[in-house]
Amino acid sequence: MTLNERLTAYSKLVEQQLLTYIQPEEDKGQGIIYEACRYSAMAGGKRLRPALVLEFCRVCGGDQQAALPFACALEMIHTYSLIHDDLPCMDDDDLRRGKPTNHKVYGEATAVLAGDGLLNLAFETASDPKNTAMVSAETQVQAIRALSRASGMDGMIGGQVLDMAAEETRISLDQLKTLQELKTGALIGVAAQLGCLIGHASEEQMAAALEYARCIGLAFQIQDDILDIEGDAETFGKSIGSDAENGKSTYPSLLGLERCHELVHELSQQAVDALTPFTDAGILPELALSLADRQK
Amino acid sequence: MTLNERLTAYSKLVEQQLLTYIQPEEDKGQGIIYEACRYSAMAGGKRLRPALVLEFCRVCGGDQQAALPFACALEMIHTYSLIHDDLPCMDDDDLRRGKPTNHKVYGEATAVLAGDGLLNLAFETASDPKNTAMVSAETQVQAIRALSRASGMDGMIGGQVLDMAAEETRISLDQLKTLQELKTGALIGVAAQLGCLIGHASEEQMAAALEYARCIGLAFQIQDDILDIEGDAETFGKSIGSDAENGKSTYPSLLGLERCHELVHELSQQAVDALTPFTDAGILPELALSLADRQK
Repeated sequence: MTLNERLTAYSKLVEQQLLTYIQPEEDKGQGIIYEACRYSAMAGGKRLRPALVLEFCRVCGGDQQAALPFACALEMIHTYSLIHDDLPCMDDDDLRRGKPTNHKVYGEATAVLAGDGLLNLAFETASDPKNTAMVSAETQVQAIRALSRASGMDGMIGGQVLDMAAEETRISLDQLKTLQELKTGALIGVAAQLGCLIGHASEEQMAAALEYARCIGLAFQIQDDILDIEGDAETFGKSIGSDAENGKSTYPSLLGLERCHELVHELSQQAVDALTPFTDAGILPELALSLADRQK
Repeated sequence: MTLNERLTAYSKLVEQQLLTYIQPEEDKGQGIIYEACRYSAMAGGKRLRPALVLEFCRVCGGDQQAALPFACALEMIHTYSLIHDDLPCMDDDDLRRGKPTNHKVYGEATAVLAGDGLLNLAFETASDPKNTAMVSAETQVQAIRALSRASGMDGMIGGQVLDMAAEETRISLDQLKTLQELKTGALIGVAAQLGCLIGHASEEQMAAALEYARCIGLAFQIQDDILDIEGDAETFGKSIGSDAENGKSTYPSLLGLERCHELVHELSQQAVDALTPFTDAGILPELALSLADRQK
């Protein structure tokens, strides 16, 4: 299978499975909250995180079906974070992937509850009794611990807090790195970790997977910053570096665009090189390189 | 120990332990979010839910220390729900237990994240590797499943959704019961369930504990409604039943005050009677009866 075929297959699998999870056991009148959750969970997106869970599990020799609930749980957490990020008191976004944001469609109160609901559902999914046929209780607890740590206040939420603080003051390159490692790196890291856990990776493979995830997470963020600037420059004819002039520190504002382009390529290659403990790394090398060439 | 001595001892234990959990592993600049969590988690309250976890575990012959992380996790979930409930887009409350609400002190964005953070931390706590010394991985997964189901969209969050809908239309007694069973009953039920799980209760004891929790949860809610009306009547000289006239269905508006008083006493007694499978039910009978006599 080519990279895109494999990614499309994973997306379909995850989306089908998400739909079966995001349903009430019995509708007692609360059905609207599930509808709000499905709206955001089914709004497209690359499904990068669940793909990493499934592919790392596969290249470790693990069973894709065993990894699927955890891939879905992670995607639920990613989706909840987008719903809450878009709220008026947060980024106040009206559109996400070209569609009205959750609170624009369902109202703020329902959007807060839909986010909360998806976060809960992630842990319901990860502790589903059906999982025990394929994943030991010990591994389930480890996976739940990893998920909650990555999405919590020492992970993604911590990064959101740093990001809010960075709106008000210039930050250093080291601080920007910490911010990104928490805000976006933690969930990408745990995707690799979950795949390896369920696939019974060796310690060496687990370390390699985490290094791969670190590199592509950082490359992804730098590429995002580059695309923001080049997009802005194209669309609005703004001078490059205007984000920095607006006071927000980004990789291009701190390192310059040219160095950023280089870094994205270096990090992608570093990600590929990290994969040596896997005899067949599947789509992972090509995926890393494709992120560097990514356009909006 | 008397009821109050026992409850005070449980409160102290839970509060000490909560403080150790609500700390960053390493402060990378995200410390403010932990401060916001501690603010709400330490704002007092009866600690009824963790007390039920600990006491049910004890009367089953289980180890209090084993139940403590799960008691704390449940209290974190209760606290997160209060923070989000108070938000401007939800109940828009400025005060909670006489103190400014979380968003009044830390701002709305931080309050949203503090709620999210506590919900995550509940699952970090329930899956803490330290727990494995005293609780099997199988039991941990069952506890995590029970917690997430009770607090999720088929539990507490579902109840919040029904409650929002009930602001706009009169509801029947059956609908009000469903609303209360989900919104407040689910977390009280899971408190009893967690205590029994960790304490290795028999099936008969588990069923008895759930029936006890159902009765006191309902009694608690009806007593709350009574106190709301009698408090309003005292404070503002409003006519009894004004809540109902304002369009919101409550137990007193649907059943009358006198019947509500009777029901609270009947349910408390029913809770006590349910406890026969426990040779020594500790403070549980007295606790049930005290809820019926509760004043604001």
